[in-house]
Order: sequence, then structure tokens, then C-alpha cells
Amino acid sequence: MANVNEKMEALGKKPSAIRNLFEYGNRRAAEIGRENVFDFSLGNPSTEAPTEVHDAIVDLVDNFGSVALHGYTSAVGDNAVREAIAKDINDRFGAGIDKTDIYMTCGAAASLTVSLNALVCEGDEVVAFAPFFPEYRVFAEAAGAKFVTVPAADDFQINFEACEALITKNTKAVIINSPNNPSGAVLTEATLLRLCDLLRVKEKEFGTAIYLISDEPYRELVYDEKTVVPYLVNLYARTLVCYSFSKSLSLPGERIGYIVVSPKMEEHADVFAAVCGAGRALGYVCAPSMMQRVVSRCLGKTSDKNVYNINRNLLFEALSAYGFTCVYPDGAFYLFMKSPIPDAVAFCEAAKKYELLLVPSDSFGCTGYVRIAYCVSTEMIKRSLPAFKKLAEEFFIESFPT
Amino acid sequence: MANVNEKMEALGKKPSAIRNLFEYGNRRAAEIGRENVFDFSLGNPSTEAPTEVHDAIVDLVDNFGSVALHGYTSAVGDNAVREAIAKDINDRFGAGIDKTDIYMTCGAAASLTVSLNALVCEGDEVVAFAPFFPEYRVFAEAAGAKFVTVPAADDFQINFEACEALITKNTKAVIINSPNNPSGAVLTEATLLRLCDLLRVKEKEFGTAIYLISDEPYRELVYDEKTVVPYLVNLYARTLVCYSFSKSLSLPGERIGYIVVSPKMEEHADVFAAVCGAGRALGYVCAPSMMQRVVSRCLGKTSDKNVYNINRNLLFEALSAYGFTCVYPDGAFYLFMKSPIPDAVAFCEAAKKYELLLVPSDSFGCTGYVRIAYCVSTEMIKRSLPAFKKLAEEFFIESFPT
Repeated sequence: MANVNEKMEALGKKPSAIRNLFEYGNRRAAEIGRENVFDFSLGNPSTEAPTEVHDAIVDLVDNFGSVALHGYTSAVGDNAVREAIAKDINDRFGAGIDKTDIYMTCGAAASLTVSLNALVCEGDEVVAFAPFFPEYRVFAEAAGAKFVTVPAADDFQINFEACEALITKNTKAVIINSPNNPSGAVLTEATLLRLCDLLRVKEKEFGTAIYLISDEPYRELVYDEKTVVPYLVNLYARTLVCYSFSKSLSLPGERIGYIVVSPKMEEHADVFAAVCGAGRALGYVCAPSMMQRVVSRCLGKTSDKNVYNINRNLLFEALSAYGFTCVYPDGAFYLFMKSPIPDAVAFCEAAKKYELLLVPSDSFGCTGYVRIAYCVSTEMIKRSLPAFKKLAEEFFIESFPT
Repeated sequence: MANVNEKMEALGKKPSAIRNLFEYGNRRAAEIGRENVFDFSLGNPSTEAPTEVHDAIVDLVDNFGSVALHGYTSAVGDNAVREAIAKDINDRFGAGIDKTDIYMTCGAAASLTVSLNALVCEGDEVVAFAPFFPEYRVFAEAAGAKFVTVPAADDFQINFEACEALITKNTKAVIINSPNNPSGAVLTEATLLRLCDLLRVKEKEFGTAIYLISDEPYRELVYDEKTVVPYLVNLYARTLVCYSFSKSLSLPGERIGYIVVSPKMEEHADVFAAVCGAGRALGYVCAPSMMQRVVSRCLGKTSDKNVYNINRNLLFEALSAYGFTCVYPDGAFYLFMKSPIPDAVAFCEAAKKYELLLVPSDSFGCTGYVRIAYCVSTEMIKRSLPAFKKLAEEFFIESFPT
């Protein structure tokens, strides 16, 4: 007897490959000691929230008044919070948005599920670019869309030839994620301009509306001054920005973010209403009320990015020296390393011998790479380097001078 | 061109009658002063969170460690938190549950949407008893179910004759809500035993599984020692308890609650997996991490119920004295008053003349009543009594001695 929804049951019984690996790491740590396991599996920030978060929380619980602080906000979010966020966005990107374009959410995943449920109608397709965050598929399919994936480009920008062929009259939305999980790549302005042009051409060709969903939890995590992450609202009218404070403020468990529905789309009122309706239908009454106020007081702050930058350089240089080929990570806190053998799953299994927990890129919709999350302690990275060296020796032994 | 999902757009454009009234109240307050508007529209707790909430937050941000406190918890919730909640439930109700039966959620609405999405398959029906929280319909339909409503019983227990006829082979779940929003009624043990027996008979008759979803945000809000709110896990194996701390701890904006999947159902593993899958598909990565720890430190505490009790008695006695007929509210913070005319919407419109904002019961799936939310200041209730008296005089004038 089918008691429950079988799709949901299957989703619940098949946790992500990343979480499986993380749990393997915990079991291994219990066996041989946490310090002997080099767990690079999870994108869980390792740096503390900035002190402004602590101070905002203490000030709010001491002085804001419990009933107002912990009470319901509007479903769209507190007005003062939305105003502060709109101002911050405009100050930084000149995007010309207003508080009425902002819908506060319970984090990036909620930003995505609410946006997708707002947009997707029966028969619609949602396009994403490999490598992509695996839950995109879960979210798009749960919203009723067919999930279409564009193969990765060699330089981890966009494979436009493939993209053009995969955008059809059924394409309702295209998801981009820059800085990217898992590749660490940042889409250049030239790439984005070309993508926006393509979407406009396709809209005209098919007489349809195509929305660009920009998933931006890693926006603040770039390390070189020259790295620019263009603001999509300025480039494409039908943009929804899905933002989260999880990574920038090291608050992933608090579930706080927002959606910007670009004011530049003519059907803004309909899309914003659909976002509100989708939030309601999915059970999101409002974003956590105290955290709304906390993040509005911490705009422009980030956790200590310097640690991530040190980790990034340390790993990139060491692994390159050992003979591995890595994508140079402009942002986020992931290093994407080419597997020395085509089968990245087998390579990650081999890495376990050295207690290195790496995620095969197959989870992200492309083959032949591994993701190394460097949001860990610098100390652990240093301790892990001999293990990486042994791993390199195992795979590159023929090419080593004997 | 249908750019967006039209159902979601319609949901977003048609806010609830309650919220419309609340917003009318805000406009009116701007015109004539907040103190002259008697807004009984919203179920937003008016009492502060207990001091233990404040103290837990300050202690956690000072001493718990930012990375662990604000980091992701397991999707099901933090283990220590789930353990504490299971122990508290067992201590109070002898329910024999374990932490592995508990899934932490972003509040009552999330508890319901996750449960419904976990259970509902194509063609399924979800049954609720009038009067009911209007969002039940939104949540059930968004999960793909047909929403079936049982007319109210005269005593606001259960209309079993109607109920029996409406439970079919397609019934996947039955939602109960006791103490009830909007009637304030508490279902007696006799009523619940009869309902559970009926469900078991129907399961046997149809060879199906019928789940009982017990929506319990008002469980702690009862005022007389003799009032017992039976724990459904002890009465019916296929029970899911949907709990929220919103009302008991005055934290409605913080979005924190849980689902108990009763360990007594044989297919527990499948249902719990489906709950996890539904949470994942809807974008609920985990319940807010700090608030999970806060509520686990405040189990057994409530906001000051005494204020609600004073309000309850004051209103019930005054309105009865003016000639109105009210359901005696055993729990929650709502008084359900019979409209003196059959058309409760018209009666509520008339009440606006006296600046009284009451919600017609039509929103809750039954006619002829109004909901008066008494989670307001006692002071406002006292100031409102002359207005209620004038309202009574308008409607009962013929029956008054002249």
C-alpha cells in the first residue's frame, strides 16, 4: 500500500552524496581521531560570524522589546529591514531597487524553491549549467519543472553552443550561480552579457518570457580586487536574485536570505505576487524575525575572508606542485581539481585510503573533477598536505622521475 | 502570456481576510489614533516571551561558539535538541517517543506543509473540521490534495455523522486542531477516542492508511486545571503531531516547531523518510539553529498565560451580559461569538462603526460566528467594552425592555 508520497520518500531515503561522505567522516573520526581525518566534504563556513552579529543579537534582545522582536513580520519581511537591504544594494551596484522588490526568505534554498514555485507552470523547463549545486534538480522537479542541464565549459564559463540548443519554447527559467559551487569560478561580465543577449533573442524567437535566477550565496566571497561579480539586475530585466547571508556572515543554520524581483521587468507585480503566493503555499510564514533585524545591521560586513584566502592559496599551490590540475578559484570556498583518472568516484574512493574526503564532481552534473571545500581550518589543510602528496604519487607515479 | 504560476499569483494577490482586516485597522489607527481602534483580528501573542528565552539567547551567543551555534544542524534538527524534546514529551504524556521520531521545523505552517507533502499522492483527499485555520486549504491544495471539510458540530466537538460520510477511500489524512483556532474549543478524550475508532474502521473498510495530523500550536494555552488535551500519539498509531513554539513562548516570528512521527505506526521509517524528503523538496534545509537550542532550554515554560485568562474571563462575561452568545473558550486565545444575524460578514461590517475589528467565521469554513482574538492588552479590552455594548444595543434593541 502506497502510504506516502513515493517521490518524497525516495528523496528522504537517498541523502546527498555530500552528506553521506560527511557522515562517513564522522564515523572515521570516531575510529581514528578527528585530527587524522581530512574532511573537505561540506560547505559549512569555518570562520566565526563577525562580532557585529553577536552585538546585534544582544542589543536586540536587551532593547528592542520581545513582542515586536519575536512577533510575526509581514510575509514579505520587515519594512525597515527591506529598506536597509535595498539601500545597501543600490549603494553597491546602483541597481535602482526599492524595498517593494524584496521578499525576505529562510535562506538560499527557500529563495530558490519560492522563486521556482512562483514561476513554473506545467510543461516548463528550468535550465542550469554544470557544474551545479545538486539540490537545483530537487527544487526544480519539486516545483513541477523538467530540469535541463547544460554541459560544463572547459573554462567553467558557459558552453554557449550547448546552451543555445537547450533553451526551448518551454524554458521558463535559467539558473546561474557565480561565484560557483563547486568550481569556484566567477562568470565574467562578457559571459553574462552574452547569456543575457541569448535569452532576449530566445524570448523573441519563441514569444515567451525567460527568467534569470541568480543564486548568489557566495557573492561576497571573492578574494582578488580585480574580481568583479556583476549585478544581474543591471543586465537583464527578468532577473530574480536569490541571496543568502549563510556564507557571508557564517550563519548557514539561521536560514536567512532574500529574493530581489527586479523592478525592471514589466510584469513585476505579477511575479512579486507569485513569489508571495509560493512562499505562502510552501509554509513560509515569514523569515525568522530577529535574524531579519540582525542581518540588516550587518550589511557590508563579512566573516574573516582572509582565512579562506590563505586556505585557497595554500591548497592551490601545493596541489599544483604535486602535479594536480586545479581550476583557479576566484570565489566561494571550493577548489575544483581535475581527477587524474576519468572516474572521479573511483579517485575519491582511492583518496579515502589517505583519509582525504573529497566530493566527486558527478554529484554536480559533470565528470572528471573533485570538489575540495576549503572552508576548514588552515591547520587541517597543512596536516593534509602529506596525504595529498601520497595520493599524487599513487596516481602520477609513472610520470615521476625514477 | 502566462509568465508565472497563476495559482501562486492568485494566492499572492488575495491575502487572507484576517490580514486585510488587520491592515484596515492600521489605516484606521493612523486616522483616529491607535487607542481608538479595537483590533481583535490577529492571533499574534501580546505577552512577552518568558525571560528564559532572553537568557538562553544571551548565554548561547556568549558561550556556545559562533560556528557551532549558527552552523547547519542535521536536516532533522540538532540531536541534543531532539533528545530534550522527546524527553519532555515522554515526561508529560508517557508517549514513548524517541529523538528519531522528531523532525524540527520552521514553525507550525512548515510542520503542516512538510507533513502534507510527505503524505499526499495524486487523487488523495485531506479532511478538516470546520471551523478551521484557513491556510489548511492552501497547504493541502498546494500539496496536491483535494480539501474536504466537515461542517461544524453545534458544540464545536465533531459532527460524526457528516464526518463518517466524508471519509472515503481517497482520504489520506485528517487534520484536527485542539485547542482550536478559531473556536477556542478543546476536543474531549471521548470525542478523540470516537474519531480514532472511526478512522480505524474506515481504514479496515477501505484497506487504506489514514493519517491523523494533530496541529497543536495552542496545546499549552489552556486555562482551567480540569482541561485535558489528550496526546494523540497515545490514541492512534498513524499520528503526526505538528507543534510550534509560536504561541506558547510568544515567538511566532522566529519560525520554530517540530513534527512527531509516531513510533507506533508500522511504516514509521517510510513516513519519516517522506517527511525528510518533503522538507528537502520545499527548501527547508534545517530549522533555525540558534532557536532550536533556545526552545530546548525553555521546555515546560510559557509566556504569562494569566493575562490571556484575565482577558478571556473579562470578555466572555461582558459579552454574555450584553446579550451575545459565546462558545466558552477552554483554550487558545480566541473567543467565538455567535453573530446576532445569520450574515456574520455584515455583522462584522457593522462592528467597524464602533471601531471593533472582528473576523467573520466564514473565513474559517462556517457561517454565523465571529472570532475575537483576545491576545491583546487587557487595557484595550476594557476600553472596547462600551463599543461592544453599543453593538449589542444596535442588534438586540427589540429584545431590550423599553
